[in-house]
Amino acid sequence: MKTVGYAAHSPTSGLEPYEFSRRKLRGNDVAIEILYSGICHSDLHTVHGDWGEQPYPLIPGHEIIGKVIDVGPEVKKYKVGDSVGVGCMVDSCQTCDQCHNHEEQYCREGMTATYGSEDRITGEITQGGYSKHIVAREEFVLKISDKLDISKAAPILCAGITTYSPLKTWNVKKGTRVGVIGLGGLGHMAVKLASAMGAEVTVISRSTDKEKEAKAIGAKAILSSRDESALEAAASSFDLIIDTVPVKHDFDTYTPLLDIDGTHVIVGQVGEMDEPVTAPLIMGRRRIAGSLIGGIKETQEVLDFCAEHNIHPDCEVIKPEQINEAWDKLQKENPSHRYVIDMTNLKVS
Amino acid sequence: MKTVGYAAHSPTSGLEPYEFSRRKLRGNDVAIEILYSGICHSDLHTVHGDWGEQPYPLIPGHEIIGKVIDVGPEVKKYKVGDSVGVGCMVDSCQTCDQCHNHEEQYCREGMTATYGSEDRITGEITQGGYSKHIVAREEFVLKISDKLDISKAAPILCAGITTYSPLKTWNVKKGTRVGVIGLGGLGHMAVKLASAMGAEVTVISRSTDKEKEAKAIGAKAILSSRDESALEAAASSFDLIIDTVPVKHDFDTYTPLLDIDGTHVIVGQVGEMDEPVTAPLIMGRRRIAGSLIGGIKETQEVLDFCAEHNIHPDCEVIKPEQINEAWDKLQKENPSHRYVIDMTNLKVS
Repeated sequence: MKTVGYAAHSPTSGLEPYEFSRRKLRGNDVAIEILYSGICHSDLHTVHGDWGEQPYPLIPGHEIIGKVIDVGPEVKKYKVGDSVGVGCMVDSCQTCDQCHNHEEQYCREGMTATYGSEDRITGEITQGGYSKHIVAREEFVLKISDKLDISKAAPILCAGITTYSPLKTWNVKKGTRVGVIGLGGLGHMAVKLASAMGAEVTVISRSTDKEKEAKAIGAKAILSSRDESALEAAASSFDLIIDTVPVKHDFDTYTPLLDIDGTHVIVGQVGEMDEPVTAPLIMGRRRIAGSLIGGIKETQEVLDFCAEHNIHPDCEVIKPEQINEAWDKLQKENPSHRYVIDMTNLKVS
Repeated sequence: MKTVGYAAHSPTSGLEPYEFSRRKLRGNDVAIEILYSGICHSDLHTVHGDWGEQPYPLIPGHEIIGKVIDVGPEVKKYKVGDSVGVGCMVDSCQTCDQCHNHEEQYCREGMTATYGSEDRITGEITQGGYSKHIVAREEFVLKISDKLDISKAAPILCAGITTYSPLKTWNVKKGTRVGVIGLGGLGHMAVKLASAMGAEVTVISRSTDKEKEAKAIGAKAILSSRDESALEAAASSFDLIIDTVPVKHDFDTYTPLLDIDGTHVIVGQVGEMDEPVTAPLIMGRRRIAGSLIGGIKETQEVLDFCAEHNIHPDCEVIKPEQINEAWDKLQKENPSHRYVIDMTNLKVS
């Protein structure tokens, strides 16, 4: 299928319109016309080569909402016209323990990422959601409830699942004391999701400037990570901290905030952290962990959870021509909302 | 009660004989004649002031085995002549959630350490096991089974519980794949205990020089942390790593050795670690944690477990006059056994 997208041709080229073809449908494939595509901070990191060399031209985007326009003969779950989504993965081995356990993101053979990975059958490079169409096997396509506003739902597929999964893994429920470090794309979803689960949520930020914003989306309080006495007063007061900060920082400010057996989960920074001191880990059996997106079953779960609780990411909808401008802002300003590209008027020439 | 011990008079003074008094028995106190007292690496750190200023004169020692010589009128569990032990704690608030949950080591008010802490009633400084007698409240006195060789049992009270507790917390059982970093006083107990639980234990060391020694105490294999190809072959192959290394080191060598959801538990180093890279944490939901000794109930459990499985720490029994020499060796050679001071011939003048 001939289509068009916005591709980077090098780590520094920026994104520009690019005509290319999506594969012919395999038996279990779903062809999707993309309507909305979220912009994730990891798109920038990946395209810029921060996490390793990439194949170019490369079309980023792994927060994809669209409509089914065709299905392969073996497809059972979807039909033309259905509202669907595609997230960070489009394939995995489907046979290992992790895949069987609905944790395809930890597939023993490595998951196939939505863009920049080799297709498991042909080896061709996968291309992402900043485009008019995508073709993906049915197992990696998500149902989008009609209770969701599709212009705002795309970021649930990455920012949503990335924060939902650790909240579930660490058993957040009514009364769990959750800290969320950073109130950007991931952080604001963590606040909304944890609040909807009944948790007592505190935003931890470099100042209390975003107090109103934090409380408006469900936080009970905001804590400044630069206020020594406030930090001391908050010692041992969190069961779980979701850390969304996407740059190198320290653990030591936060570890003492955890209660005995509490966990600090990194979901933002992929790279080095400052030297940690072990004493607060040892003295309270505290833990540090990482978490990567979530499996397909859990991604469906967070989409349905958001539909049920009327949770939408805070989105600014932009036109495809504004992608480069939005990327600039994302790098400079760390806004607390997500940019979503409206693909509805993008035409295949 | 007039008694004698080996005290440090400053961080650098070394230890010398010192006459002092133990308190008169309170209603719930047990008076113990100490027969054997283990030397723990943390005795050196504490006395040298590495973990904060200390009160001097200070008598270290928190691996204590002896016989009951007197009991207060309210004591129910012990009588004169019983074999008993005292470990790292001699008191706690007994009322907080942690104490109620048998985790006195994490007492909300802070546990009272066996030496160098303020007594909760009088404020006098507690003095440890490098001495002829000790007085402790019954709740913090442990039963010593007659199946244990009392000349070798003392280190169970610190090295034993410090490694047993994380093995239990992280649910080690038959077939669990456990790595033990370092084969010193803590490490060799971790190997013995984990093996007795049915785990498949691998020692991780700077070389494979200690292979025979490791296998003799129950390890299935030894892995060199400097052998890149062996490390690569061992990727994702451990459920739990017990890290007993008592100096600054890195996480990044070890994190990729953990399987998905595996945990690396620090029990040795209290201080800074090298900058960790988050990728292996995120990509496998791996975890880093700390763990501090264990509660009194669990300490009794490890003593009984050792009695049942005929597990004894590897000990070199020394005379009190050899304490300073043993400390020197501990600092320079990191031996894979524990020094135990035979107190039986120490006389109160």
